[in-house]
Amino acid sequence: MEHIFPYRQLFDFTYSVFKSIGCNDKDANTATKTLLSADVRGIDSHGVARLSGYVRLWQAERVNATPDIKIVHETPSTAVVDGDSGLGLVVAPFAMQVAIDKAKQVGTGWVSVRNSNHFGIAGYHAMMALQHDMIGMAMTNASALVAPTFSVERMLGTNPIAVAIPAGAEPAFVADMATTTAANGKLEILQRKNADAPVGWVQDKDGNATTDANALKSSGSLLPLGSDREHGSHKGYALGSIVDIFSAVLSGASYGPWVPPFPAYVPMPENMPGKGLGHFFGAMRVDAFRPADEFKQHMDNWIQRFRKATPARGHEKVLVPGDPEREKEELHMRNGIPVVESVVEDLQKVAAQLGIAGL
Amino acid sequence: MEHIFPYRQLFDFTYSVFKSIGCNDKDANTATKTLLSADVRGIDSHGVARLSGYVRLWQAERVNATPDIKIVHETPSTAVVDGDSGLGLVVAPFAMQVAIDKAKQVGTGWVSVRNSNHFGIAGYHAMMALQHDMIGMAMTNASALVAPTFSVERMLGTNPIAVAIPAGAEPAFVADMATTTAANGKLEILQRKNADAPVGWVQDKDGNATTDANALKSSGSLLPLGSDREHGSHKGYALGSIVDIFSAVLSGASYGPWVPPFPAYVPMPENMPGKGLGHFFGAMRVDAFRPADEFKQHMDNWIQRFRKATPARGHEKVLVPGDPEREKEELHMRNGIPVVESVVEDLQKVAAQLGIAGL
Repeated sequence: MEHIFPYRQLFDFTYSVFKSIGCNDKDANTATKTLLSADVRGIDSHGVARLSGYVRLWQAERVNATPDIKIVHETPSTAVVDGDSGLGLVVAPFAMQVAIDKAKQVGTGWVSVRNSNHFGIAGYHAMMALQHDMIGMAMTNASALVAPTFSVERMLGTNPIAVAIPAGAEPAFVADMATTTAANGKLEILQRKNADAPVGWVQDKDGNATTDANALKSSGSLLPLGSDREHGSHKGYALGSIVDIFSAVLSGASYGPWVPPFPAYVPMPENMPGKGLGHFFGAMRVDAFRPADEFKQHMDNWIQRFRKATPARGHEKVLVPGDPEREKEELHMRNGIPVVESVVEDLQKVAAQLGIAGL
Repeated sequence: MEHIFPYRQLFDFTYSVFKSIGCNDKDANTATKTLLSADVRGIDSHGVARLSGYVRLWQAERVNATPDIKIVHETPSTAVVDGDSGLGLVVAPFAMQVAIDKAKQVGTGWVSVRNSNHFGIAGYHAMMALQHDMIGMAMTNASALVAPTFSVERMLGTNPIAVAIPAGAEPAFVADMATTTAANGKLEILQRKNADAPVGWVQDKDGNATTDANALKSSGSLLPLGSDREHGSHKGYALGSIVDIFSAVLSGASYGPWVPPFPAYVPMPENMPGKGLGHFFGAMRVDAFRPADEFKQHMDNWIQRFRKATPARGHEKVLVPGDPEREKEELHMRNGIPVVESVVEDLQKVAAQLGIAGL
């Protein structure tokens, strides 16, 4: 059972939730836009479905609704931002803007962030660069669900990487991917349906392949992109590790198994080596390499050529990263955004608790 | 059948080959060091085994042994380098040095390269940053062997990504990976043994899964990391695409299916949209983010914690990216470097042809 809401209605509701926990107008606006970009682009797991989770983090005093976000160290092309335990939904756009401003000055900007929280979808932040004719990059660490190759211990989050690249007449190239075989959100969908997971997504507590979509609830773990050693899981493990190190070891955030959990009822890890979650952002001015119109013309050529690649039998066409999400966005802005019944109920409860109008 | 050569003997021979095709002393030295770093680190497919291939590219006038390598565009944190059709083995270290020099000035340096050739192993270039307390990155495009998700057409090379991160007491973190499930070199090993490939490495010309290690010889293709859509091949496809775009669309090199082939007997693609192969390099000064000793102390902690992660049954320990190659390096520098019989024969032929002393 799904309800369909116009974007504006979801926006106003979400905005009122952030206001009621104490965000100022600007931050509530930013947090809402960032969070809903997930629903708009069809990544339901990271949008309003998580709103109550953010509220509970605030109730548990793990999120500061009035943070003093600031640059604590910088060079012409780099900065470290301290998020002061703010919502990642607000801290991340601040930090990405710092990267963009630095790119304007010296060609590129690179910002590592500590003391933050979950930032929504990585793609949103990377895409902030596009309007400036820049390539944008965003990554974040997250609480540990993923076992390294040859291990049964959860050591890494799903640690996504997003890269947005501007084009000319063609829409931008936008990749936004967890460094696991499947994002945790996909597993949650199977759990709700009581369906099996494909072999290669998760392992049980002993490291055996399993199709049990609930294996994570009995000490199983997600597998890095590649699934097993023979199929390159050491590469997914390396990618997730790079995200963790860029986001947290560079900034002074917590890393590996010590990343703070999203569910507020899960106790904080002991002996955390840093502050909060970490993110990493990059912006590269296209014309720091070659004239922007030349670059965009070749990106159009690249995209058009890949769209024309011979499809395999049973497939209509070859996609360019970002195509599925853009199609969802067009559909959702026209026809409204579907939200599943259980999420709507959860949101009404949040509204009642905060004493604001329901959805 | 393998022969074992001391590093010095392989070095002197390789150096004399590069000298005899016209490289000056400095370039011959750089090319030799770069090429042999593959053999030293156990990545046999990319070392002396390819030396005759480089010579044939020179004979076909696709490689310029006396290139005028130069910066053609730059900002404080970026540059585009034109390799003047030089050996990638020489062009790449030049460009990586430019990235390092820029990082010294403004915190980070990012260099895209056009008009180059195959550059050996990506990890070697990334590791150049380590001695400067910098994080190094290197990537390159390569001739098309890989089909995008849902396609049967070869559109991308194995497009590797390498990231080297300095630590303190622990050895550096060094990831160096093709963005395919398996590197082509691994497939070549199976071909020599007449052995089957695991399902998920290659597909046949119709896009069906196959265990035929020779499928590429009958219009099959390599699969992106993830193997199939259900296991995340769209992520491997996106990663390979990002490498292609950063390396070639940013610089003005050729991209996608138009990348010049390594075998000199394969005709050059028609209507190439750019010049030669492309690479992309990055260097980030660690202390552009936080004090270097602090960063290294936390990297040591990160590495030690991951080494202690609980191993899965049947596995002794969890590895950190770079461990296997470092072990090989220690072994090879002590006991000599194994080179298979067929490669030795090939090298003796090259020597005879060039009129120099054999190996």
